[in-house]
Amino acid sequence: MLSGEENEILTRTGSGTPMGELLRRFWLPALLADELPTPDCPPVRVRLLCEDLVAFRDTDGRLGLLSAYCAHRRAHLFFGRNEECGLRCIYHGWKYDVEGNCVDLPTEPSESNFKDKVKLTAYSLREAGGIIWAYMGPKGRMPELPRLPITQVPPDHKFVIKRLQESNYAQALEGGIDSAHTRFLHGYLDAYKHSDTYMKATESLRKRFIDDPDSLTPPELDTLFRMTDKAPRVMAQRTNYGLAIGARGTISDQNYYWRINQFLMPFYTMPPRDPGGHAFVPIDDENCWVWTFRVETKRPLTADEVYAMRTGKTDGRFGAPVDKEYKPLANKANDFQIDRELQRSYNFTGIIGTGNQDMAAQVSMGAITDRTQEMLGVTDVGIIEMRKLLLNAASDLCEGKEPSEALNPDFYDGVRGVSFIRDKNAPFDDCVKEMLSENERTKHRFRELRKP
Amino acid sequence: MLSGEENEILTRTGSGTPMGELLRRFWLPALLADELPTPDCPPVRVRLLCEDLVAFRDTDGRLGLLSAYCAHRRAHLFFGRNEECGLRCIYHGWKYDVEGNCVDLPTEPSESNFKDKVKLTAYSLREAGGIIWAYMGPKGRMPELPRLPITQVPPDHKFVIKRLQESNYAQALEGGIDSAHTRFLHGYLDAYKHSDTYMKATESLRKRFIDDPDSLTPPELDTLFRMTDKAPRVMAQRTNYGLAIGARGTISDQNYYWRINQFLMPFYTMPPRDPGGHAFVPIDDENCWVWTFRVETKRPLTADEVYAMRTGKTDGRFGAPVDKEYKPLANKANDFQIDRELQRSYNFTGIIGTGNQDMAAQVSMGAITDRTQEMLGVTDVGIIEMRKLLLNAASDLCEGKEPSEALNPDFYDGVRGVSFIRDKNAPFDDCVKEMLSENERTKHRFRELRKP
Amino acid sequence: MLSGEENEILTRTGSGTPMGELLRRFWLPALLADELPTPDCPPVRVRLLCEDLVAFRDTDGRLGLLSAYCAHRRAHLFFGRNEECGLRCIYHGWKYDVEGNCVDLPTEPSESNFKDKVKLTAYSLREAGGIIWAYMGPKGRMPELPRLPITQVPPDHKFVIKRLQESNYAQALEGGIDSAHTRFLHGYLDAYKHSDTYMKATESLRKRFIDDPDSLTPPELDTLFRMTDKAPRVMAQRTNYGLAIGARGTISDQNYYWRINQFLMPFYTMPPRDPGGHAFVPIDDENCWVWTFRVETKRPLTADEVYAMRTGKTDGRFGAPVDKEYKPLANKANDFQIDRELQRSYNFTGIIGTGNQDMAAQVSMGAITDRTQEMLGVTDVGIIEMRKLLLNAASDLCEGKEPSEALNPDFYDGVRGVSFIRDKNAPFDDCVKEMLSENERTKHRFRELRKP
Repeated sequence: MLSGEENEILTRTGSGTPMGELLRRFWLPALLADELPTPDCPPVRVRLLCEDLVAFRDTDGRLGLLSAYCAHRRAHLFFGRNEECGLRCIYHGWKYDVEGNCVDLPTEPSESNFKDKVKLTAYSLREAGGIIWAYMGPKGRMPELPRLPITQVPPDHKFVIKRLQESNYAQALEGGIDSAHTRFLHGYLDAYKHSDTYMKATESLRKRFIDDPDSLTPPELDTLFRMTDKAPRVMAQRTNYGLAIGARGTISDQNYYWRINQFLMPFYTMPPRDPGGHAFVPIDDENCWVWTFRVETKRPLTADEVYAMRTGKTDGRFGAPVDKEYKPLANKANDFQIDRELQRSYNFTGIIGTGNQDMAAQVSMGAITDRTQEMLGVTDVGIIEMRKLLLNAASDLCEGKEPSEALNPDFYDGVRGVSFIRDKNAPFDDCVKEMLSENERTKHRFRELRKP
Repeated sequence: MLSGEENEILTRTGSGTPMGELLRRFWLPALLADELPTPDCPPVRVRLLCEDLVAFRDTDGRLGLLSAYCAHRRAHLFFGRNEECGLRCIYHGWKYDVEGNCVDLPTEPSESNFKDKVKLTAYSLREAGGIIWAYMGPKGRMPELPRLPITQVPPDHKFVIKRLQESNYAQALEGGIDSAHTRFLHGYLDAYKHSDTYMKATESLRKRFIDDPDSLTPPELDTLFRMTDKAPRVMAQRTNYGLAIGARGTISDQNYYWRINQFLMPFYTMPPRDPGGHAFVPIDDENCWVWTFRVETKRPLTADEVYAMRTGKTDGRFGAPVDKEYKPLANKANDFQIDRELQRSYNFTGIIGTGNQDMAAQVSMGAITDRTQEMLGVTDVGIIEMRKLLLNAASDLCEGKEPSEALNPDFYDGVRGVSFIRDKNAPFDDCVKEMLSENERTKHRFRELRKP
Repeated sequence: MLSGEENEILTRTGSGTPMGELLRRFWLPALLADELPTPDCPPVRVRLLCEDLVAFRDTDGRLGLLSAYCAHRRAHLFFGRNEECGLRCIYHGWKYDVEGNCVDLPTEPSESNFKDKVKLTAYSLREAGGIIWAYMGPKGRMPELPRLPITQVPPDHKFVIKRLQESNYAQALEGGIDSAHTRFLHGYLDAYKHSDTYMKATESLRKRFIDDPDSLTPPELDTLFRMTDKAPRVMAQRTNYGLAIGARGTISDQNYYWRINQFLMPFYTMPPRDPGGHAFVPIDDENCWVWTFRVETKRPLTADEVYAMRTGKTDGRFGAPVDKEYKPLANKANDFQIDRELQRSYNFTGIIGTGNQDMAAQVSMGAITDRTQEMLGVTDVGIIEMRKLLLNAASDLCEGKEPSEALNPDFYDGVRGVSFIRDKNAPFDDCVKEMLSENERTKHRFRELRKP
């Protein structure tokens, strides 16, 4: 539960708000690289942190992110001509380069120096990992890009997609951190009802996991997790990049099954054994982009896998087909295509696809949920700690203390979610240590992958 | 004309408003019984008096009406699983019974007593007369269901339907009370223009009425009423259930034709000779449900009559076909399908169906009409008295005086609209007395009908 | 740049606002005459200066413009019956004449004089030039209709059309005044890129212009204008009707090419050599009607020209096809049907039709543009002067000084935009004088045309 004031701080991201300023210290996934495919391609509208912007790739391939409105009479630059190293307004032909400088002002006399006074707000863009990243903070404080897995592996080892979510980013992020909803929101009735068939299938998963944990897909890991008690003990530990959030379930008399979910400041999550994960990026206070990154450490993705992810026709990981503007086909207006017969006979929700299931739960809470009315339980520890981390960092920044995570891109290198089976006596601290070693191994593997 | 403040009190129905609190003292028609047809059927969204709720019928057939948002993290319970005597949230499986108790909280350790602290707002539902009724007031003050005709006759003697109206409930209710609009809004051009054919047809109606008033349908009674002067004298008398509103028209040198329309607190009306009538129930302050009850005292309804009412394809009484969500096909967005050629050649409005005609007039006034700008005339006496009654009852309740009508369900028993032809010397008081005797006869007839 | 307060004054047009009151001193184009084609035809909704109204043509052909809501219980008179010299409300049959008098009040006793107290707000309508004009100001101050060209020529010499624009009227008006956007917003790539072919074609235009300036169409004049320097020197001079706004471009070593665009109070523009022009009339503060008048001084319009204008399929002048409710098919929701391939290969915007191009620029600025954020240059002088004129006139009126332009309809007679080539030594004053003589000639020609 938050106070009304805390809820406001957590969820408001416009310029000048505490959280808005904090988020402006970090690089933000802004566009898929495909949205600006070639030099001089059409500009695109971008809305981030409540600001209306326009992005373009100039003749030399440089990327620009400008205030959407021409400095002259405020025509929208989305309609602009992207030509000869600049974006030209359709109204009077004023032209801007990627840094927001006015490089041509044809309606003024050639001898005029008026042009030099004209300057549009411009933010930096960088391309990495199939994503165009934006930095909307103070120029002098621009950090390096965070070393996230998606930017550290060869192109054929990764895939990235985004979808619109009609809710505030924070409740999407809370969903990404929350280890406890898997068995419900993403559950199947067999699992939920503990049938014999289900128990046998999961037993074989358990054996495979002990032999080679990385051979299990995230849905298979979720299945394994469902074998443990329903009320996992959740713990969270501060790391240099954010939080390691452990969920512990009893898998046998001697052993716990541990899942460590990562929260990376300010809005990334990585579920167990996934060096890809998600980002939840505010468009404005009532909408966000949900990014899904997939990274394979051992092999390139197959054509079938890429096809499935592009179309959203995957079982488990993505499962939220979108239209050409990245709006999910299942959405608030159609009740996420809930099928009550499937809810009776097949899965927990009657909604198909984990992405759609997550959206249904998170969007159904309203655009900005009223956290003064919630009742948190033992499984919400990770969410509680994440909120504290964000609220404290926002408060620190108001007092002039810069967020360390933004300043140190290396903090992110090799971080991945992990899971393992350990003796019941092993404390959470040991698990976190083991996880940190695993992070080091992943980092090393990325380095190997990048070698020519 | 009301003051701005009175208009606010009359029209605002949220929790804590004077009218909202008054309405919460009464049972409200909430759903058609068909909307929750069987145990464990899908839950449905309910919005009443500005509150977002979810209704369900549990495994044992019990009905529940809960706050729409799960107590935990506020996912919407519309998506919930209705199973094993409770509604289970799709997010983390928290489960509630019809009383709002949390009966399963799987994400907490089994030894935890956290569950006992979790309680959702829950309102009472009762099923009667093909309707599911809601009581949203203080638990300790819950009265019996009002003995309305729709709940007092065998199933085959009645029919009930509802439709969405995009206006505040009060202007819908005022339309239901208003005896003066019939000859205009629901009129046909022949009647309006007093053709010979029309006059002959009405003369035969007059004879039938004298022989057996109950043999005339409400549209036939309306036709008869149109034979009288256009400016009926309207009178209203307080009764124990609300108001008897008499409209008196001259039908011959010696006689008046009297129509007594009933207003039953807080939002029911019964036009003449109709023991069915209407209810106008606030969804929020800009939308309401218009319920139509039809009750036959002498015989079961025929299959043709039921078909006509279900499809809205009736001439006169209903006449507002709706879609699967009870939204009228003719509505504000399409100007209620007005046909100007029909308006020239056939009926007064060019709109087909009395329901659609009522909606056109009432919705066209805007979502909440500005009663500081109206000019009331002699025919508006019933409306004036109804407003006083509601405003006084709301004011009384603010001062701790409970509404007597809510406390006495018997007040409603046998009430029906009536009409008769009487000598011009007969005062309104006599008419009301005669009407009260008629109510007694109807009550008796209902009792006979219910005998096995 | 305006202050926030000035921007509010310029853009707010409701009753009681300074600009709203100023605009209420002038006749406003309200409807196409075709929208009320015959006596007793269906009434139409009118929204002007933020007021909801209904217009009708009565049995005798008289025009009425009334408050949209019946004085009784405020049902909307759009649904009313237009019959026997009055508009009758569908709810209770109250009937109003074109002056807002209640001429029948059937629900009151015939001996009642209540009717005499009932009066609806009524504004005056006049029909002229294929347009129905409204006057919404104080009765005692109603001026004559302005002698605009559209009302001064025979019917076959003119054509008039309107389209909805989803922006405040002021930014539409600014676009109409703005001489500098033509070469950009309405430009073709050949012109923009100064190809040889283009230069040859324009040279022939220049010769034709010297021989007979009136033989060139406005698009041809625009083409000629594009031959001059890109940064025209703009000057504005107060006239009795508003402003003469001159844009001067160098067309040879010795000569300037002058275009004089007219601003006629309060919202008319006439581009060069066009005695038709535009009107930009506020519907409310976020929508306006863009009227286009075409007037031929020398000959009737051809059937082909009328067809092209009716359908919006013209090259140059209109170019904004509309639906039955005058809403453009290319609009905000579909990005004005921008075609990026055409933008690369054919014209400056990739949008087809000057009307659509204007709308794209003006609507893209947002419903009410933030003029505190703009940066005006040398070409914006006309816009600056127009704003001053309107703001001063609004301020004067607040202090009791009536606008002279409204009082003197003759000020408008014969005004037209002009263009000519003159020696560089000729000052703007001379050009304005020449323009005023041209106005006199046009006025004379109109008089000749009107002779039987």
